[in-house]
Amino acid sequence: MIITIIGLGLMGGSVAIDLRKRGFADKIIGVDKDKINANAAHHIGFVDEVTDLESAVKQAELIILAVPVDAAIIVLPKVLDLIDNQVVTDICSTKETLLERVRYHSKRKQYVAAHPMAGTEFSGPWAAVSGLFDGKASILCDTEDSDIRAIAKVKRMYEVLNMRVIYMNSSNHDIHAAYVSHISHISSFALALTVLEKEKNEKHIFDLASGGFDSTVRLAKSSPDMWTPIFNHNKNNVVTVLDTYINHLKAFRDSIENDEIEKVHQLIEQANKIKRIVK
Amino acid sequence: MIITIIGLGLMGGSVAIDLRKRGFADKIIGVDKDKINANAAHHIGFVDEVTDLESAVKQAELIILAVPVDAAIIVLPKVLDLIDNQVVTDICSTKETLLERVRYHSKRKQYVAAHPMAGTEFSGPWAAVSGLFDGKASILCDTEDSDIRAIAKVKRMYEVLNMRVIYMNSSNHDIHAAYVSHISHISSFALALTVLEKEKNEKHIFDLASGGFDSTVRLAKSSPDMWTPIFNHNKNNVVTVLDTYINHLKAFRDSIENDEIEKVHQLIEQANKIKRIVK
Repeated sequence: MIITIIGLGLMGGSVAIDLRKRGFADKIIGVDKDKINANAAHHIGFVDEVTDLESAVKQAELIILAVPVDAAIIVLPKVLDLIDNQVVTDICSTKETLLERVRYHSKRKQYVAAHPMAGTEFSGPWAAVSGLFDGKASILCDTEDSDIRAIAKVKRMYEVLNMRVIYMNSSNHDIHAAYVSHISHISSFALALTVLEKEKNEKHIFDLASGGFDSTVRLAKSSPDMWTPIFNHNKNNVVTVLDTYINHLKAFRDSIENDEIEKVHQLIEQANKIKRIVK
Repeated sequence: MIITIIGLGLMGGSVAIDLRKRGFADKIIGVDKDKINANAAHHIGFVDEVTDLESAVKQAELIILAVPVDAAIIVLPKVLDLIDNQVVTDICSTKETLLERVRYHSKRKQYVAAHPMAGTEFSGPWAAVSGLFDGKASILCDTEDSDIRAIAKVKRMYEVLNMRVIYMNSSNHDIHAAYVSHISHISSFALALTVLEKEKNEKHIFDLASGGFDSTVRLAKSSPDMWTPIFNHNKNNVVTVLDTYINHLKAFRDSIENDEIEKVHQLIEQANKIKRIVK
């Protein structure tokens, strides 16, 4: 199968590497408006050629949109305008605004909205790796609006990437994503800002980072170009979750300040219940 | 050397395993008021015998206090009352209140306050592992109040555990620990509470946890018996840091709510600077 990938960063590159390695793609065509990214992807070798959007879309049987959601909202309708009977999918972390944008497009049925829940804190074609998606979940959204053969093709692709496929409507997807992914990133960004503001002596941060800081702050290295549009497109959910999160932090703060030792103990015991769910 | 370890959980057990394995300890005596812990430690084999505090202290050349800080504040003066010319050290995560407690003890010089910055989210003797401390930092506090030979012995012990030894006064230690360790834990506990409150459908948390949630929530599995006293004994620093953290979260919240996309982008770029410091 000839596959076109639009956006040749961490995600697009990692998809390319494993789809080729596992025999799903015979040829991969890349599109990226950033010339440095495009050249790097070609040089690294995970795309066979780099060309313009129109030519890339025309040649491919499957088109994967792997750009940040603010770019996807502009590029997705253009891609749908260009296709004949090809299948189009995306990998964006927020789904509702994107699906709303193409709701009445005549080619809507050939598009399958997807969110493979995987990533690292790194970005760019240099960060692309094999195995990024193995064992994780990919969410297909609002599939009742997609053609059954288009869904089958995208589902097959995620099976090749070793992912569990989950179905969810886009509204529920965005709520869940706010809780389990977007809030974690804001929590980590704010933690980094807090520590950077205080710890002028950077050596101490490095020395003491083994105390748990390193794992909670890992996500604070994530790309602003990717995450700013995610927070913007999932604004209402993210703000709601942040309010809840800030309230829980205040409960800790006040109990600690008032020496309510039993209450602090209970809050931690309550939080420990996450053990049942996340290994 | 005969070593007594008081408190046979994750930390005490992990110290025991490597001090024996690496030839630093010839015999390890264990003390734990929890009979289940004591029996487990003996059964697992990282202590040679389990006995009462007085007998254990009398027999040993080096006594390591590996109990939570609220217990240490009671046990440390008792241990100092019992010793002749032995060396005593502890591994508590907060130092100022503990050091204040024994400031005028006649055996103060034989005590070396230490905080090896390592751990996992697990607890109990079953969680003890070899290599827990390798490559990390251990902080010795207020060493001007300790005997030079006592310091040398404790320093040697941490070298055997493959740790970098850092010197800091207890007040600075507690501030730094609040920023790089204690706040990470509260951030993670509050994140777990937020998600548990919302996500009644636990399967979704599990399915979606690969989106960054798993790494930020790992610390939320940590023991309330250990962490409640830490927050209590480092109250002022922890409350100050929490206030700063909550303000940064509010800055994110308000910029997202008001569609200040440039501001959100800048906040993330600023947070990204943590890359320079934490690998």
